[in-house]
Parts: sequence; C-alpha cells; structure tokens
Amino acid sequence: MQLRLGLPKGSLQEATFQLFRRAGYNITVSGRSYHPAIDDPEIAVVLMRAQEIPRYVSEGVLDAGLSGYDWIQENEARVVEVAELVYAKQSQRPVRLVLAVAQDSNIQQVTDLDGKRIATEFVRLTRRYLAAHGVTAHVEFSWGATEVKVPELVDAIVDLTETGSSLKANNLRVIATILESTPRLHANPAAWEDPWKRSKIENLALLLKGALAAYAKVGLKMNVPGDRLATVLGILPAMKQPTVSPLYNNGGWVAVEVVIDEHRVRKLIPALKEAGAQDIIEYPLNKVIP
Amino acid sequence: MQLRLGLPKGSLQEATFQLFRRAGYNITVSGRSYHPAIDDPEIAVVLMRAQEIPRYVSEGVLDAGLSGYDWIQENEARVVEVAELVYAKQSQRPVRLVLAVAQDSNIQQVTDLDGKRIATEFVRLTRRYLAAHGVTAHVEFSWGATEVKVPELVDAIVDLTETGSSLKANNLRVIATILESTPRLHANPAAWEDPWKRSKIENLALLLKGALAAYAKVGLKMNVPGDRLATVLGILPAMKQPTVSPLYNNGGWVAVEVVIDEHRVRKLIPALKEAGAQDIIEYPLNKVIP
Amino acid sequence: MQLRLGLPKGSLQEATFQLFRRAGYNITVSGRSYHPAIDDPEIAVVLMRAQEIPRYVSEGVLDAGLSGYDWIQENEARVVEVAELVYAKQSQRPVRLVLAVAQDSNIQQVTDLDGKRIATEFVRLTRRYLAAHGVTAHVEFSWGATEVKVPELVDAIVDLTETGSSLKANNLRVIATILESTPRLHANPAAWEDPWKRSKIENLALLLKGALAAYAKVGLKMNVPGDRLATVLGILPAMKQPTVSPLYNNGGWVAVEVVIDEHRVRKLIPALKEAGAQDIIEYPLNKVIP
Amino acid sequence: MQLRLGLPKGSLQEATFQLFRRAGYNITVSGRSYHPAIDDPEIAVVLMRAQEIPRYVSEGVLDAGLSGYDWIQENEARVVEVAELVYAKQSQRPVRLVLAVAQDSNIQQVTDLDGKRIATEFVRLTRRYLAAHGVTAHVEFSWGATEVKVPELVDAIVDLTETGSSLKANNLRVIATILESTPRLHANPAAWEDPWKRSKIENLALLLKGALAAYAKVGLKMNVPGDRLATVLGILPAMKQPTVSPLYNNGGWVAVEVVIDEHRVRKLIPALKEAGAQDIIEYPLNKVIP
Amino acid sequence: MQLRLGLPKGSLQEATFQLFRRAGYNITVSGRSYHPAIDDPEIAVVLMRAQEIPRYVSEGVLDAGLSGYDWIQENEARVVEVAELVYAKQSQRPVRLVLAVAQDSNIQQVTDLDGKRIATEFVRLTRRYLAAHGVTAHVEFSWGATEVKVPELVDAIVDLTETGSSLKANNLRVIATILESTPRLHANPAAWEDPWKRSKIENLALLLKGALAAYAKVGLKMNVPGDRLATVLGILPAMKQPTVSPLYNNGGWVAVEVVIDEHRVRKLIPALKEAGAQDIIEYPLNKVIP
Amino acid sequence: MQLRLGLPKGSLQEATFQLFRRAGYNITVSGRSYHPAIDDPEIAVVLMRAQEIPRYVSEGVLDAGLSGYDWIQENEARVVEVAELVYAKQSQRPVRLVLAVAQDSNIQQVTDLDGKRIATEFVRLTRRYLAAHGVTAHVEFSWGATEVKVPELVDAIVDLTETGSSLKANNLRVIATILESTPRLHANPAAWEDPWKRSKIENLALLLKGALAAYAKVGLKMNVPGDRLATVLGILPAMKQPTVSPLYNNGGWVAVEVVIDEHRVRKLIPALKEAGAQDIIEYPLNKVIP
Repeated sequence: MQLRLGLPKGSLQEATFQLFRRAGYNITVSGRSYHPAIDDPEIAVVLMRAQEIPRYVSEGVLDAGLSGYDWIQENEARVVEVAELVYAKQSQRPVRLVLAVAQDSNIQQVTDLDGKRIATEFVRLTRRYLAAHGVTAHVEFSWGATEVKVPELVDAIVDLTETGSSLKANNLRVIATILESTPRLHANPAAWEDPWKRSKIENLALLLKGALAAYAKVGLKMNVPGDRLATVLGILPAMKQPTVSPLYNNGGWVAVEVVIDEHRVRKLIPALKEAGAQDIIEYPLNKVIP
Repeated sequence: MQLRLGLPKGSLQEATFQLFRRAGYNITVSGRSYHPAIDDPEIAVVLMRAQEIPRYVSEGVLDAGLSGYDWIQENEARVVEVAELVYAKQSQRPVRLVLAVAQDSNIQQVTDLDGKRIATEFVRLTRRYLAAHGVTAHVEFSWGATEVKVPELVDAIVDLTETGSSLKANNLRVIATILESTPRLHANPAAWEDPWKRSKIENLALLLKGALAAYAKVGLKMNVPGDRLATVLGILPAMKQPTVSPLYNNGGWVAVEVVIDEHRVRKLIPALKEAGAQDIIEYPLNKVIP
Repeated sequence: MQLRLGLPKGSLQEATFQLFRRAGYNITVSGRSYHPAIDDPEIAVVLMRAQEIPRYVSEGVLDAGLSGYDWIQENEARVVEVAELVYAKQSQRPVRLVLAVAQDSNIQQVTDLDGKRIATEFVRLTRRYLAAHGVTAHVEFSWGATEVKVPELVDAIVDLTETGSSLKANNLRVIATILESTPRLHANPAAWEDPWKRSKIENLALLLKGALAAYAKVGLKMNVPGDRLATVLGILPAMKQPTVSPLYNNGGWVAVEVVIDEHRVRKLIPALKEAGAQDIIEYPLNKVIP
Repeated sequence: MQLRLGLPKGSLQEATFQLFRRAGYNITVSGRSYHPAIDDPEIAVVLMRAQEIPRYVSEGVLDAGLSGYDWIQENEARVVEVAELVYAKQSQRPVRLVLAVAQDSNIQQVTDLDGKRIATEFVRLTRRYLAAHGVTAHVEFSWGATEVKVPELVDAIVDLTETGSSLKANNLRVIATILESTPRLHANPAAWEDPWKRSKIENLALLLKGALAAYAKVGLKMNVPGDRLATVLGILPAMKQPTVSPLYNNGGWVAVEVVIDEHRVRKLIPALKEAGAQDIIEYPLNKVIP
Repeated sequence: MQLRLGLPKGSLQEATFQLFRRAGYNITVSGRSYHPAIDDPEIAVVLMRAQEIPRYVSEGVLDAGLSGYDWIQENEARVVEVAELVYAKQSQRPVRLVLAVAQDSNIQQVTDLDGKRIATEFVRLTRRYLAAHGVTAHVEFSWGATEVKVPELVDAIVDLTETGSSLKANNLRVIATILESTPRLHANPAAWEDPWKRSKIENLALLLKGALAAYAKVGLKMNVPGDRLATVLGILPAMKQPTVSPLYNNGGWVAVEVVIDEHRVRKLIPALKEAGAQDIIEYPLNKVIP
Repeated sequence: MQLRLGLPKGSLQEATFQLFRRAGYNITVSGRSYHPAIDDPEIAVVLMRAQEIPRYVSEGVLDAGLSGYDWIQENEARVVEVAELVYAKQSQRPVRLVLAVAQDSNIQQVTDLDGKRIATEFVRLTRRYLAAHGVTAHVEFSWGATEVKVPELVDAIVDLTETGSSLKANNLRVIATILESTPRLHANPAAWEDPWKRSKIENLALLLKGALAAYAKVGLKMNVPGDRLATVLGILPAMKQPTVSPLYNNGGWVAVEVVIDEHRVRKLIPALKEAGAQDIIEYPLNKVIP
C-alpha cells in the first residue's frame, strides 16, 4: 500500500525537500524527473505545478498534496486541510493575493472596476470576488509578468505578493487583499477516511510540523543556584515547562533546560545572566514536538 | 512616432536579442525590466510571454510582434504575417505541435480519443483539431510538465517538441502532428495600413532576414587562371552570380568571390582546388541581402 | 615524530576532508598542492591517487593511508586494515567491482569468456579472478571510459559501479560481482608495530569512526511521567541504554535522552508521543563514541 | 530611540553578518544598498568601508561601529573600545601591520629608512611610527596593490598581512611589526554615557561574544560510573565546571556534560574512554555565555 | 631597449586587454600578478590602479600609460597626451565628474557650498574647482561608496558617473559637471623626446586607434549596374571614398566596397537596395586605418 | 560507407570540436556520451582517451584518429601520419616529454640513472630511451600527479610539459627532452589503401589545415596609388602573391589584398601607411587554403 503525495515543482521545491529532510524523509530527484525517489517505500511522490495539485487531490488521483491555500481556492477543490505549514521561499510569512492598480490611477476601490479589464492567473477567484462585490469586469488569463501589464494592457491585476517589492517596482497600488495564503498539507476526503492512509498522513503532518517548529526554536541550557531558580523560571517563556535537574554533589545548584523561540534569545540571555544563571549555552534543534 | 513591438520573454529572449544585434539594433534589458532599451528612438520594445504577443498585436495594443505560428493560431489572432524567421533555441528547425499517447497505449489515431482526457497548453487549437476530426474529448489546461502526465493523469497530450527527446524520455508515442511552427514577425492589420509603420516593419524584416541569412553563409574568395574560370564557375552554387574581377598585371588571372551556404564549403573547397583555384579564403559575414 | 598519512586525491577528496573536519582535524589545501596543511603537527598528509596509496603504504613510504579495499587488492599490498569507513561520494553504500557484458551478448557467466577480450583498470584482480575460474582471456588496461568499450572494442569489462546507472546507460549486463569495496584506513605493518605510531593511528580511527557514526545518528530528548517510563524505554532502540535523569520538584517525571539512528526517528516519534512522552526534541550530533 | 551602528562593507561583510546571525540578529541587504535591514527596530545599520567607520563614530555620526584596531589608530579616533571580536576572513588570527622591504634589499631595520620612499594605505600610522624612531622618509598614499611596488616604485611598504603569503609571493621581507589588529566593537564617548545606548551596546557585545565563543567550542556529554567520576573530572578542562547529574535507577552512574574548545576534543576523547566514560557524544553550539 | 607601459588594473582591465588583442598585442596575466606577459619583447607592462598611473608616468618611472583624463588632472601630472581612446566598461561614452547634492537639498549651485562638507576621491580637483568659484568648503577624502554619504554624512559629493543610474538610485541631483573624462594614452615628456620610444608609442597609438575604430565599423560590399553607380555612391557615407572595381565580363556592372559606421547600416541597406544595389553583404572588421 | 574516426576526450576535446567547427563540421555531444553526433553522415566519431586512440587505429578498430605523437610512439602503433595539426589547450606550441629530477639532485644526465626509480605514464617510451642510452633503471607506472613524486617516492620522472610552469612549481630540473609532440591526424594502413576512405581522410586534413591556418592569419585590404604599388608590394609578405585589382575611374589607384600572419600586422601597418597605402582594413578569416 502506498500513499500518493503531490509536491510542488519549481520555486518552492528546494524548500519543500529541505523541510522533508529535516522531518526525516530523503527525497532525491534525478535530472528533470517528476517522480523523485523517497526513502519511505510507503510513499510515492509526484512533482507537479502547485497550481494543479489541489485539482488532482480533489479528484482522487493523489491521496494528499502540498500546495497553497490560494490554489486550493482557485481550483475550488474539495479537500481536507490537514496542516498549515508556514514555510516559503524568502520569508516565513504568508503571501497575499491582492488587487492592484497603477499608483496614479483614479480607481480607489473594487467597486470602481465596473467595465474595466483585469489580468490574473487566478481567474475564478477573481470572478468570485468581483461577483461578491457586485462588480462586472473583463477578467483575462495572464501567462505571467502580470504586474507589468498595468496600465498599458489592463486597468488592474490580481496577483500574489510576498514582500510587496515587485508591486512597488512596477508603481502599483494595492486596493484590496483578496486572501492570505500559506502552504497546506491537504488530503482527498476518501483517502482521509481510510485508516492506514489517514494515519500515514497524520504522522507525516506531525513530523513536518516538528521540523518546521525547530527552524525557529533553539535549546537553552544553564546552571542556576537553587535560591535563584524561581527568579530564572519566572523569566523563561518555555514551550511547556523547563526541564530542571539536580546537579551532583553541587550544593543546591540545578541544571535548567528549555526550548524557546530563537528571536527571544537576545532579550533573554542578558536577563538570565542578571538573574544568576551561569554557563548558558544555546544549541540548534532538528525537531520540536510538544 | 513610434512602432510598438512585442518580443518574447524567456527561453527565446537571448536568441532574439542576438538576432536583432546582428541586424543592427542593440537591445539592452536592465534587471527584470519588461521595457528594454533599444537604440532606435522610433521603436518601443515590450517583452512579453510569447503566448500573449499575438493577442495584443491583434487587439492593436502592439503594432507588431515576434511569436510562434503556434501561438498566433492558438490565440486565433487576426494579424498580418510579415516574415518567417527560422531561428530557435537549439536548432534552426521548426517545432512541431504533436498529439502523443503512452508508448504502450492502444490509442492509435486521433479518432480513438473519443471520451478520453487530454492535457495541453493549447486548449483552443486542440479543440479545433478534435472537432475537425469529429472527436469529442475532455481537454484540460496544463500548467506545465505536460509530457509527464500520461498515462497517470490523462490519456493523451498535445505538446510542442523540437527534437523529440523529451517525448522519448517520457515514453510517449506521437500519433499526429497538428502543426509545425516557426517564429513569425507579424503586424496588426491597421498598423500595416499606416505607411510609416509599414515601411518601418518592412525595413526591420529586411534586416532581420539579412542577419538570419548570414548565420548560415560565408564569403569565399579565390584566385583563378582565366582558362579555368568556366570550370570554377560551373562548380560554384552562388547566391546569385559570383563577383569576378580582373587582377592587375597578372596575365589573365581573375579574383572570384561568392557567398555560399556554410555547410557546402567542405564539399566545395577540395573541388575548387582541383579545378585550379588558388589562395582560397573563407571569411565570416554579418548580413546577406540578395 | 610524524605519522605519514596518504589521503585520496580527486573525487573522494572533499568528502574525506569533511570527515576529518568532523573528527577534529582541519586540512587545508592551497591551490593544486599535494601536501595539504593539517592542524596536527604530528601528522604529515600526502594527497595521492587512491590507486597508488596501498602500494606506497605497503612499501613503507607512508605509515598509513585511506583507500578502497579494491585498490588494496589490486596492488596486492601487504598492509594492516585498521578500520572500515563507509563514506562515499553519493551514498553510504559500498561500491562493487563487477564483470559486465553487453545486454544482448550471449555471454552468460565467467566461464563463457575463454578467448575473449576484457578491458579494465584492475588488470591483476581480473587475471586472478579469471584464473580462479579456469578461464583464459586477453585482459587489457583501460585508461578510462571503460563502460563504453563494449561491444565495439572488447567483449567484457571489469569496472566499479555504485548505483549501476552508468552500466544501465551503456546497455551493460552484470554477470558477476568480483568484490565489494569500501574505504579502509590501513597501515604499514612495521609502522603498526611502533607503539607511538600505532597509538596515533588508533586514536585517529576512533575519532573518524565517531564522526562517521554521527552522520547517521541524532540525539533525542523527552520528558516522561514515571509511570510511563517502562513503556517508553521499551520502544527506544538506544545505542547502549538511555540516560534517564530525575526532574527537579516534578512529581516523578524523568528526562530521557538517547542517541538513535536518524532513519528510525520518523517511526519512533509518533510511537513515543502515544506512549506518553512530551516535549520531544531532536538535535544534531558531531561525534558518537560508544 | 535607535542605535546607529556602522558595519564594514566588503571582505569582512559576510563574516560580520554571519556572526550577527548567530548572535540572534538577522541582517538582510538588498542589492547594493548601504542601509541593510535588521530585525531589531532599535538598531539602524549603516554599511561603510572599514577605513571610515572609526572616523564617523568618533565624530558622533554613528553611535557605535565595528572596525579594526588598525583603522581606529590610523584615524586617531577618540572612541570607547567595548569588545575585541577575533573573527576574520580566513582565520581567527589577528592581522599584522608590517614594514617590509625587498628580500634582497640592504635595509635591515626602520632606522635604515632615512630619505627613502614608503607606500602605504596607513599614512598617519606610518608617519607616527617613523617619528617615534627618529626617521625622516617620504610616505606616499597607495591606492592598492601596495605589495607589488617594491622595489620598482618605492623602497619599503607598510601593509597588512594575515598569513604572510602575499608578502612571500612578492619577495618581501618583514623588518618590523607596527601593530597587531583585531576587529573592535567601539562606541562614541557621548553615546557610551547615555544609559539606554550603553545598555544596548553592552547587550550586543554580550551576544556577539557568546556567538563567537561558540564557533570554537562544542558540547560533550558522557555517562560515567560513580567510582570513575573523579578521574574523568580530572581530565576535563571545562569552561567553568562540568554539569554532573545522577542517572535514574542506575546504580551510581552519572551523566557528565561540559563545554570545551573543539581543538581539544581529539586529545580528550581517547583519554575519556580510557578513564571509563561511555556513550560519549559531541554536539554543536550556537552560543556560549560564561 | 624596452618601453615601460602602465595599464589599469581592475574594472577597465579586461576591456583594455581586449583592445590590445585586437590591436595585435596578446597580454596574458597569470593569477594575481601585476607584471603580465606581452608578446612584444620591446614592451614591459605594469598593471596598476588607474589612479596612480599618471603620477608614475609623470615621475618617469613609466614611459607611458593608459588612464583617464580625470586622474591625469587629479594628479596634476605633467604628461604628453598621445591619443584619446574612447572605450569603457559599459558604453563608448565618456564619464563625467559631477558635483551632486541630495534631491531635496536647497543647494542649487556651487556657490551655495560655502562652509559645507564635501566627500570625494578627487580631493585636489575638487579644491581647485571650488577655489576657481571662490568657494571655501571642507573637502574630505572618501574611501568609496561616496554616493551614499549624502545627506547623512556630508552635504555634497564629487563623483564619477557614466549613466547617472547610481546617482538616481541614491536620490542625488547634479548641480555641476566638473569635467568629462575619457581614457588617454599619455607619455612621460622625456620618453617622448627619445626617438625610439616616441616611434614605439606612436605606432602603438596608431594600432590601438585602428582597432578601436573597427569596433564601430563594418565592411559593406555590393554589386551595382554601371548606370546606378552615381546614385549608389551618392548615398554612401564612406570613410574616404568607396573602392569601386569593374566586374569581369559583366556588361558594365561594378563591385562597390565601403567601410561605414555600423549604426548607419540599418538606414543604408534599404536605401541601397532601392537604388539598385544587389548581393549586399556586411562583414566584420578587425582594424580600420584611414 | 562510413569513416570511423577517434577524437580525444578530455582536455583537448573542446579545442578539437572548435577546430572541426571552423573546418565545417558540427560535432555535438549530449551529456557524457562517447558517440557524439556529427553533421556528416559519412563519418562516425568515437570519443576516447588520447592514450588509446593510436592503439585502436593501428588495430583497425578505427579508420583514423587524432592523438599526440607521444601516444603514437608509446603505443608503438603502426599508423600512417596524415597531417600535423599544431593546436593545443593553452598555446600553439608543441608539448615536450622530458626527463626531470629534483632541482638539487646530483643526477645530471640520463646515464646517472642506473639503478634508480623512475615514475611515468610513458613506460614503454621511457624503457626504450633508457635502453638506447645503456641505462638500467626501475620504471614504474604513475597514475597521475607524476611531478610531485620527486624526490620522496622516486628519483626521476618522465612527464609532459607545455610551459614548464608545473615542473618549476615542483622544483624539478629537466635533464633531457625525450621527444616533442604535436597532435597528428593518423590513419590505419589498410584504411589508407581504400580509395574512398583515403579521399575522405585527405579532404578532412585539407579542411582542418585550412581552418588551423586561419587562426593565425588575417586579411588585409588597402588602396594604393599606382606609382607606390611596387614599394607597397615590396613590403608585403604575402602568402603567395597579393591580389591587385584596378579601381574604377580612379586614375591609376589599385586595391591590394593579402592574407598575412596576424603577428606581423603590427609591424606592417605603420610601414604600409608610410609607403602610401590608405584606407587599410584588417578582417578576420575562417579558412585559408593555399
């Protein structure tokens, strides 16, 4: 028995493979193959354009897939969302699907778009959004470079943006955010009902989330005199609660160990030192499972 | 007054710029801009996906464009074809749009496709082709990697092929060629009626064809004794007729100069030498205008 | 006093240096030098073709070396094998020296090779193998690209293969495996009798093996309620036995820490969580010494 | 309120950013910008040539900066030295500013330079050094490639050297070391008096030193029988003292954990094993704060 | 006897070597050497920063050099200017040394700079320029990245610009152009008086100019009926006059050959064809000597 | 009928393909194939190590091949030498096979090598050379990096050198040159007797030599007044004799055209100008056939 899993080809591919590697799965792709090898004989991976994964998951050609919320919505795919996995090319932030016009256009809001032309890769999402706002406009499919088409070719675009820098470089102004999107592990409803497949998908989700959590967390260890323990524990924003262990033959000192968000470390370390902690070390983590 | 010219972004871009450079136009693109600079103030270049150029030329947003015959047909674009320019990424051969199935499929011809699923980037062309053969099938838009979808996801595909190697690598069998495609300089019908624009487009075509011809031709010069001239001329497959000029103070010798296809040179040179030609030199050309 | 150590130049070099780095030795090679610097004044490193290292170790020009079992055998080198170190370019698998013929050849086994021509870089090994099977054939030295010589130039080859993909790409069929080979740290017999050199070589072997073990292992830490400890310990395939330490002021909870094979983690973590373990973290290791 | 911090552009930039990253600060520079983003809103980073940073810190344009001791001295900058941070491009060693002449020059010491020509980027430092030795010479500013100017253009140079290899390659002989230089975090005196800024700078120094210490250190963990603990502890050169914790239900065994210099590991591990330690693991560290 | 010639190291180096190669001199530089080999035993090349070449030429350490007019002026070097050679990194245009301020500064002209701070690599040129306009300002040496110093660190800068894009990217406004600069072959006055050296330098200048002219020119050949010759000649903007030669046995046709500016070709070819020229070919040139 | 042609794989491959391209043959190799495609259906190319080509040509497995004189000799191959083709990686010079010892060795000549050890890739050539000088020494096959083996592993080496720089870098001293080697087109004696194959090989040699000649030659054209023609012709070192043609309607002027060695151009151009030539242009050549 095998789980058929669709993973995104292209710009997210390398980050996806790295996440799987940290989760414990080695995926190796030879040349331009679309059927990479994975070191788990119970999984068969297919590489696909992210745009198409939700369609094939919803049709049952795949049991599960990894793609953005944006493409799940665009495909109107009926799938089970198993886990949100916020990893991405540049940042750990979600991408936004926005409606944008030229900086100096007199279009101010979606309702000004009546009778206008809009280019987008998300034709269905755009049409649903316009309909919900009672707007009638011409929506045309864009093969790419959508953001350079305003104002010469169209009046507005609906496009993805991560940092906004491409919009800015093309002198565009965002007038609405249609949705925010993050990668989702999603499953075909029938596969989700199959106990073996569901357990396989759930374990995969557990390990991917554990690996993803570890990107942003580190381990911290320190020695603390017994009488300062309460103070130190008061400062620590532990995942759950710190692991405190007695030291051997060392009159009341304890070792304290926590897992914390990396971005808090630079505030914490000076505070911990002041509170009496000594021999503080920070070490990297591969996985963190609560 | 300016001619608005659409050039293809992406895999053909570098070859296109090089062709223009040899034709005498320097195009420089800074970073990821879609409005490259060209050293002719009477032309404004827009870079676009080849798929969209014929649409915008036919709508008059552009005066002229360079794109494949395939996309002109897919867009059902009403444009004037000005020149066929056979240059391409790997070879100087046309690409073919083919209908292909799995090597071991029992589909043998287009009429076996009734009720089947077909993936393609050329949805309209495929539908027209099926209709012309009286076939009813489900045609779905493919976002890419079309050739790996057979047989898992679809029964057949309609895709471009240049050398056939990708089809072969994916164990596909061609059952029909829908069309052959080469790049075409094409113009908007109204722009073609405008004398200034038409002259501009025609001169551009002349220079592009001159540069393209020079890729495959070389100049050949040699000295020939007068009494061997007829023999030598009989061997030469000149473009038009060779340029023969008398030598100075050199009893009857003449200099013969021709422009010929490079691939004939290796047959010709031994023959010319045998026929009495001496001091044969071959030199490169930038442009050849008949 | 210095230990003269031969390390392989070429395709294994980078992986070798990386292994030494993790073992605690920094080797830096400037340009194309064959005498890289190492940050241990008691060792002198010489880079050499792997083919020649066992010969020079056996002759006493080097005290110890790192090369494959294949070249130790081909050189008929009398050396002490100190440690097997399974690291390699692509995988952690051994390479095989195989006897191969054309896919469609009618040669089925070694005894069909009488009177045939065989190309190989391993002339002596091949001759010994043929002699052991009572076969008389013409064995010729191959300077490289051995696998493309069948069937035009020779009837069979003896060549190394790691994944078999090159054999497959050249339409070859393996008819026998002559030996399996892995890298070996080996010593000159006289150097091995010298106490200082032997201790130096043994410590090196200890650290290299410790570093190599760490490639495939990770550390796992978790908190467990006392009453679930037995269950958790029953699941864990620890290297030796887990390190269990009491938590401070935490009614019977203990911290459990183990070192395990990385490839088992993805099965273990779901099981551990189900067994009651919490706050599981996985962290990377540099060295593991049992 | 913001701390204005100058960081060196160029050859030290990547190493500097990496050190900050390990200290907990992400600096991202887009393109060729001199105002990189940092994920701490209380800091504004400016990239500058290392030569100019001390000048702008001393003038108060910047609150603090990171540059070499050499440029602090050359600029005669009145700044507070907050921390010495020994990281550098190739090695962890300081660079030296040396006075060098041609290998075969008859200049033997600084006092032989009277009336000679000296090229250097460090015009002021050189003049001060010569004055201190009572020497009068012509010192000219060198725009670069200083080491190739001897003996054709000048008699001596004052230049930086890290490994000495460039001096050697140009046949130069060092006759004096003018100073040794390491990177220094330094502050403007007025900023140092401001409590908010001083605390900000001190915390930054604490984290940078913690990250830097971790480059050269590793964690070591092992299990030890109680009766061998004293022997094991006697061997360990711990940062402060090892963390010893009792094992659970394990008749007298303890877990010992220390942070030690990585370069000592290869001597220690064989000794620890001999002393009775078992299950020794070495793991990497991100930060070490004593 | 040898001519000592200084050539610029760095951004102009590759373009300089290429120009020399087309002029007939092969210069090969091994690694980071400053004494490249040249295949003319009568020349010794020294690579140097462009900034320093005029100084060493004026002092007679070099006989001749190639550097910008800007650095000849900044060094106040007394040298003989032998030839202007307009080649450069990006374009064939001269670079300009400009005085620039922040876009929104209220400084409008040089006389507004009294008492202000100016950063520049051209300290002497800037001081001379300010003095000529009766302005007293603080001019400080900038080690680089001059254009990012406004307005935080200084009020104005004097910097080189080729396309203006770096100024624009840093929001700077040019208020004056101090000089335009092109590369110049220049000689030491005494070397210029030496007949052997002068002849050597003059021949070098002749060949460099011939090679440089060929960058922008092409050869054009065509066949013309005798009665259209006057018309065709009237159109041709030949360097001097076209080479016209009779064709053999070809009733009155002549072959016309000219050397023209490449950028004129695209206008000329359509006109020539219309005037009756046939078999027009364009070919590349290595050198053009009038 | 097909000519089987062996071409060298590896360091000479790219230069070989380029030479064939200029001779008029396009060879394209896909990936790591040893059977590249060539656009002449009458030739089948096999890529091989240069070491093995003469062996296979002499055995008749190949009809012709391109390899060095060194390997023809080492293989003691009975082949017909058709053409010497002096092209090579770095230079157009021949490589030398030399006998070298350590700089400070007391071995001065070949006769000092009695009883010594010599490493080489050219075992047979070395043994023949030693025998010819009456020397008995131990010659061992070297797998590579031969030049670093002196003096630690052997007393002398026999190795190829092009510029001598590798010998120098390894402190070696040449004591004898055993042979000079250049690439040779060579044929199997039986193939040479076959008229079709011989004509095919001879035409190939003609075109390869024509292309090779063009690397080092250029075309020169100039206009000369009739009364200066003799002077100008006296200066020109033409391949054969210059092509002189009368100019049209241009009182006695003639056009002179020659093909000359590129390295002579820089001496000639100043002389031609002085002799009265005008409008001198130099243009590149593809092939030169005398």
